[in-house]
Amino acid sequence: MIRRYAPRDLARFFTDESRFAAMLEVELLAVEAMEQLGIAPSGVAERLRAAAPTIDAGFVEEVDAREEITHHDTAAFVDVVQARCETPEASWIHYGLTSSDVVDTALALQVTRALGVLLVDSAALVSALATRARETIDVPVTGRTHGMFAEPTTFGAKFALFCLQAERDRVRLGRARDGIAVGKLSGAVGTYSNIDPAVEAHVCAALGLVPVPATQVLARDRHAEVLYACASTAATIEAIATEVRLLARGDVGEASEHFAIGQKGSSSMPHKRNPVKAERLCGLARVIRGYVIAGLEDVALWHERDISHSSVERVVLPDAIMLTGYVLRQAAALVAGLEIHAETARDTLERRSLGLVYSQSVLLALVSRGLDRDSAYRIVQRAATTAATEQRSFREVLEADEEVALDAGVLDEAFDLERVLAHRHRFIDAIEELG
Amino acid sequence: MIRRYAPRDLARFFTDESRFAAMLEVELLAVEAMEQLGIAPSGVAERLRAAAPTIDAGFVEEVDAREEITHHDTAAFVDVVQARCETPEASWIHYGLTSSDVVDTALALQVTRALGVLLVDSAALVSALATRARETIDVPVTGRTHGMFAEPTTFGAKFALFCLQAERDRVRLGRARDGIAVGKLSGAVGTYSNIDPAVEAHVCAALGLVPVPATQVLARDRHAEVLYACASTAATIEAIATEVRLLARGDVGEASEHFAIGQKGSSSMPHKRNPVKAERLCGLARVIRGYVIAGLEDVALWHERDISHSSVERVVLPDAIMLTGYVLRQAAALVAGLEIHAETARDTLERRSLGLVYSQSVLLALVSRGLDRDSAYRIVQRAATTAATEQRSFREVLEADEEVALDAGVLDEAFDLERVLAHRHRFIDAIEELG
Amino acid sequence: MIRRYAPRDLARFFTDESRFAAMLEVELLAVEAMEQLGIAPSGVAERLRAAAPTIDAGFVEEVDAREEITHHDTAAFVDVVQARCETPEASWIHYGLTSSDVVDTALALQVTRALGVLLVDSAALVSALATRARETIDVPVTGRTHGMFAEPTTFGAKFALFCLQAERDRVRLGRARDGIAVGKLSGAVGTYSNIDPAVEAHVCAALGLVPVPATQVLARDRHAEVLYACASTAATIEAIATEVRLLARGDVGEASEHFAIGQKGSSSMPHKRNPVKAERLCGLARVIRGYVIAGLEDVALWHERDISHSSVERVVLPDAIMLTGYVLRQAAALVAGLEIHAETARDTLERRSLGLVYSQSVLLALVSRGLDRDSAYRIVQRAATTAATEQRSFREVLEADEEVALDAGVLDEAFDLERVLAHRHRFIDAIEELG
Amino acid sequence: MIRRYAPRDLARFFTDESRFAAMLEVELLAVEAMEQLGIAPSGVAERLRAAAPTIDAGFVEEVDAREEITHHDTAAFVDVVQARCETPEASWIHYGLTSSDVVDTALALQVTRALGVLLVDSAALVSALATRARETIDVPVTGRTHGMFAEPTTFGAKFALFCLQAERDRVRLGRARDGIAVGKLSGAVGTYSNIDPAVEAHVCAALGLVPVPATQVLARDRHAEVLYACASTAATIEAIATEVRLLARGDVGEASEHFAIGQKGSSSMPHKRNPVKAERLCGLARVIRGYVIAGLEDVALWHERDISHSSVERVVLPDAIMLTGYVLRQAAALVAGLEIHAETARDTLERRSLGLVYSQSVLLALVSRGLDRDSAYRIVQRAATTAATEQRSFREVLEADEEVALDAGVLDEAFDLERVLAHRHRFIDAIEELG
Repeated sequence: MIRRYAPRDLARFFTDESRFAAMLEVELLAVEAMEQLGIAPSGVAERLRAAAPTIDAGFVEEVDAREEITHHDTAAFVDVVQARCETPEASWIHYGLTSSDVVDTALALQVTRALGVLLVDSAALVSALATRARETIDVPVTGRTHGMFAEPTTFGAKFALFCLQAERDRVRLGRARDGIAVGKLSGAVGTYSNIDPAVEAHVCAALGLVPVPATQVLARDRHAEVLYACASTAATIEAIATEVRLLARGDVGEASEHFAIGQKGSSSMPHKRNPVKAERLCGLARVIRGYVIAGLEDVALWHERDISHSSVERVVLPDAIMLTGYVLRQAAALVAGLEIHAETARDTLERRSLGLVYSQSVLLALVSRGLDRDSAYRIVQRAATTAATEQRSFREVLEADEEVALDAGVLDEAFDLERVLAHRHRFIDAIEELG
Repeated sequence: MIRRYAPRDLARFFTDESRFAAMLEVELLAVEAMEQLGIAPSGVAERLRAAAPTIDAGFVEEVDAREEITHHDTAAFVDVVQARCETPEASWIHYGLTSSDVVDTALALQVTRALGVLLVDSAALVSALATRARETIDVPVTGRTHGMFAEPTTFGAKFALFCLQAERDRVRLGRARDGIAVGKLSGAVGTYSNIDPAVEAHVCAALGLVPVPATQVLARDRHAEVLYACASTAATIEAIATEVRLLARGDVGEASEHFAIGQKGSSSMPHKRNPVKAERLCGLARVIRGYVIAGLEDVALWHERDISHSSVERVVLPDAIMLTGYVLRQAAALVAGLEIHAETARDTLERRSLGLVYSQSVLLALVSRGLDRDSAYRIVQRAATTAATEQRSFREVLEADEEVALDAGVLDEAFDLERVLAHRHRFIDAIEELG
Repeated sequence: MIRRYAPRDLARFFTDESRFAAMLEVELLAVEAMEQLGIAPSGVAERLRAAAPTIDAGFVEEVDAREEITHHDTAAFVDVVQARCETPEASWIHYGLTSSDVVDTALALQVTRALGVLLVDSAALVSALATRARETIDVPVTGRTHGMFAEPTTFGAKFALFCLQAERDRVRLGRARDGIAVGKLSGAVGTYSNIDPAVEAHVCAALGLVPVPATQVLARDRHAEVLYACASTAATIEAIATEVRLLARGDVGEASEHFAIGQKGSSSMPHKRNPVKAERLCGLARVIRGYVIAGLEDVALWHERDISHSSVERVVLPDAIMLTGYVLRQAAALVAGLEIHAETARDTLERRSLGLVYSQSVLLALVSRGLDRDSAYRIVQRAATTAATEQRSFREVLEADEEVALDAGVLDEAFDLERVLAHRHRFIDAIEELG
Repeated sequence: MIRRYAPRDLARFFTDESRFAAMLEVELLAVEAMEQLGIAPSGVAERLRAAAPTIDAGFVEEVDAREEITHHDTAAFVDVVQARCETPEASWIHYGLTSSDVVDTALALQVTRALGVLLVDSAALVSALATRARETIDVPVTGRTHGMFAEPTTFGAKFALFCLQAERDRVRLGRARDGIAVGKLSGAVGTYSNIDPAVEAHVCAALGLVPVPATQVLARDRHAEVLYACASTAATIEAIATEVRLLARGDVGEASEHFAIGQKGSSSMPHKRNPVKAERLCGLARVIRGYVIAGLEDVALWHERDISHSSVERVVLPDAIMLTGYVLRQAAALVAGLEIHAETARDTLERRSLGLVYSQSVLLALVSRGLDRDSAYRIVQRAATTAATEQRSFREVLEADEEVALDAGVLDEAFDLERVLAHRHRFIDAIEELG
């Protein structure tokens, strides 16, 4: 992933150094297990751990050079580790293992750890949304469906619903982590042909992974689910960002991204203050979405494995996770810093909407008074059209309409903002229930 | 495809009857060729054409019943055709052919013909857009970038750009049709093992298809390109529909879908007039987009073919083509019927935008007068912020700003709508060049 | 979905009749609730339930005709229901509701019920795989990685791993059902502006749905997850089908699809017996996969909803669910009927593989005897190359190689099939743990 | 893109330095044009070109630092360029331009140039396939459909068909390049509000781009088509790689990837020689495929543009192009180095297939002798089943079958390999026609 969108603390899980370090850890734990089982000589694990090379840029370069000969990166890794140990006991490294025992368990470990970070980020977004929901639950705004004025709602309701959705994504990320927090050291085709299952148990326990039956590799439905959890998370963020973009429009002006001192909205038009952060989030959601397909296509490997998934995962898993971390953090900042223009929102609701947002209330008042629904609908629709066309207050039009004939008290109730928002606390109740 | 979105004249290409009729035509043309080549006895082609069954619902049922036994639909088709001919000469049907010679050539024919219809629909959309472009090229509207007021443009410019883009899609559809207007009758693995290449040449010529080298089947990059051309077409329509939705918003009101007498915008809110047609087009663009992936996944068949593409194409090719026809027609109607609210648009431009849409003109006037760009930018940005915050006319703020110091003539020119739109004829020129 | 791939018992959930019946049920339950709350007059719910129209083809036609006028299908539905009730009390139908209260809750109900069927199908596939795993756990087969002979495994291990994976999909489908088993009757923008929350509680309880906070509609991450669960299920089936296709190859012949009496494998080549069912499953997995993207794109609706998701869901939700049902059943049948050719498999393992499948065992024997790993590797690799090139028994080549120098007992152990398969019971243990 | 899959000569087009250099070139050419038009003072273009900063790592860092303040990367770029010029005349830089005039034209230039490289790579793959086709057109191999033995073909036919398909992709890449080889310098909303169209004409001509009508940005159907051309190219390569993987299987052994001295096929199993290059190509095709969706989602920007496409394109365009270059080159090398095992192939054809590959020839011989097709089919099918079950020669079974009763001369012709391959030159003719 390009530097711009790669949070450092996530990127570090996916460097060559991190990968090799995780692989070395698997190898050393396997020797440890073999020693405990009496397969390897006593003391060898400790001595190899002491002799093991430091995983640094030089080590990576040496493996790269070796791969030029072996054309097999794990074989190259094992060769270099053993050579660097400078002891015949190094032959116990990778004993009875197949490459994937090491690589796939290490990858699962890297992804599990990275998802741990994403879970924190995800919780932070949930939290930011909850905070803004509580803050703004009493701030009215015109609810819009199909982009048209519908009925009043509040900013807090918007935030609360996003909060609940973001929480569902957090749960999805957690499940995906549980699904990938697994390991396998069961040999070339998963039969433990030359390895004691106790080695797998020992290594996985030490790494916090669950040992699972496998072919040469872990099943790829697990990895696909990780990508889906990222894409679902990003889709929710896309929804939040779309809301911001819509509210920020020049024609609306009910919310805006924080605009920094010195910021330029446009290189040519000095008046511009654009919701560029939100737009960026929408774009990146598209990128993350595209990775899901590749993940699903990786599931049907041939027989006990083919390696076609590997090139996909080298690119897509880190990219998806880094981008998801990026969008989670940017989204949390966007939410936290979002400027709510309550007065503009109220102006839309009270003046610009002409009061049409209460049309259902009027319809129901007429139905309650005994009109059949279709007739009532047509009466209210006609009045609404008049109001919209002539840009007059809907209530005035209704008052002047003989067919309507609702008394002032009834109209007062129909047009009562507090009444239509009376249940708004339920949104907050729902987020408080998340605990 | 569900009835709601399946134009009848496109659906008819994909009925079982159409499919079998196309297959029968291929079979009969092949006999004709074999007779001309002296392989089949003289007169057999004419006699078989006379004896050939009518392809109707009864025929389809009989093939279905036969497929229960053969578990092979083309074998079932051939069996039923031969049985219905009621003559031993019927054994010349399918002689030397493999199923795919018939099925794949027939499918290419069906798709080619259906694309012919789409090309007409596509031209109609281009034409509708061109008409509206010419009509509205002088109707100003606030150009918006990032959803924010940017600079003035005209409705005609919007239509013209969509017109040019729709025309590119028409070209893409045409290329896709050229790519799929091919046939093959070269036997089980494409080697003409038991068939004279002249048969292929004859059949294809009669059907207007180009004979091409093949395995058992035509290469699937051709079919994938059809799906992509559909998806690109739908993406352009999504862009048009998104523009309509944005302009139709309650906060904007500069355009609206035609609203019929008796129409209900909402079952509960009588005041609603929603851009539902445009929203539907956006949704269907997503559906069509999803088919592209399946099409690309079909390309890598095994060896001389596996049949995994077949189930995909039974579903996806008709669905994509029918939906594309549907969205093309709906889009053309949407464009033709779109109500442009020129006065509202002018009100936004002149009043609601506060004149900020001329900020670049002011910036350049300052730069022309010798200010360095960054300083000029900051001066104009400050004035723009004042105007926006205090909801004052940008020009008034500038006039009151001592640092600005531009005389009235310069400001007149900067704020001259006619000046900034002086080149709008170029959009029309571009569509006239399409010829 | 085309008839061929639409299981009837799933298709019935998605007919117009089913949809309207579910909507009517929501409407009637809402009246019931309003009566209990004292909003609607006593007895009205029962009288309306008695007066309510039968939902049949005639009803659907009438709604269609009405929609021609209203251009709004729910408004049309409500109009027809009320007219058919032939009582002024019918105005209580849809009282205080918005279309989506009815449509979205009904859709969630339809999908929840359909997923209930898929869960049964999914369990049946898990069960079929478990049965075959137990049956064939002792039947050896050459494990292949990268398509090349690797080490021995058993057919039962293959089935068991697929069983575990199918079970994970069953869990995913169950979670997706839990996510979609929700309802909302909270009005135009989800604020309960004109409806008592108790109505929602009553209706949802009666339908087995959980009431949740919403905008005008339920959040679409729920629907996207349904599509993903289908795609993951299909990807697993693609993996199973790919295994069948690979084992069935003419070059392998270790398994084959059941071939019926009278079946024709090819219309032209009478000798063909093709794995067409497995190929079809691979194709349909592609189709289902494509729907996920559209589902994710539906998540970011505008404000309190736009209706772009609706056209997507009319097509994609039924199609995905029907296809998933189809592939689940076909996969279960494929698995149950799969013919295992144990003798051919053993011939590959013992003769055609030349014994190379034991190369790691020999390598480890050498390392155990003190050779460093890389040297041992090169010795064994050389012997393996000789065996492969000269098509000689790997063991004979080793015995003739002075550098190898392993005595017969050691080689016996290295080449002991029972030894390498000693842990195979673990695969069965894992499926038994599923309970 | 990770280093492993990023060809350097392609990566260089997408560095920050390259991007800024292209942008600077656009800026300087624009000044040149303005000078020629008499807008800018005489001599300014040359002086600014001399004063313009070198685009190096230091420049990039300075822009990055400036972006921290402006939150707008083009504004930051312009600020730094102007500051570094150290002359008041620098204010002519970006005069009348909007960011996208520069950024979008520069991006089109970068992509156009990179596609120029891909076109060379694509031609090299076509050429490699043509060479192998000519070399191996006479080398017979068993054609396989559904993975089962079908009829004989030749390796050359396989290569030739891939060659024709790769050539179609080359044409697609060329069209995509033509589509993206465009520029725009028409200001904030494409109206040339503050810029003479002659500036655009001059800049584009100098860069080899075609000036086109635009909004603030070029229409994104152009960029999407680039991504599709990459994905189609990759899908063809996936098909080639799949063929290699299938032929290389341990059970088949008719082709293999070149295996280098010192190479290790597996870290644990010394006998392994795996088609890992081909598998990698299959994986990367999946990655590239996923980018298409993001590209199509970018098409529907809001109004005169939103910037959501930008983050997508920063990631996806370079990644797709670099990966496509990588897979094109790897595929060409794979094709050129592919080892064909003609003797193994002939053994399959003559011995392992039991002669069943001639079953259609026998069927047609029977039909020619007057049998009805269905009866002939069942007779041949029965004989084929006997041959397969008893592993006997198909011809012997036929000779022993009284119902068959074909004399030796007829059977000789039916089983004549040269006869069934007589038209193989047509594959070569087709590639020669490419010119």
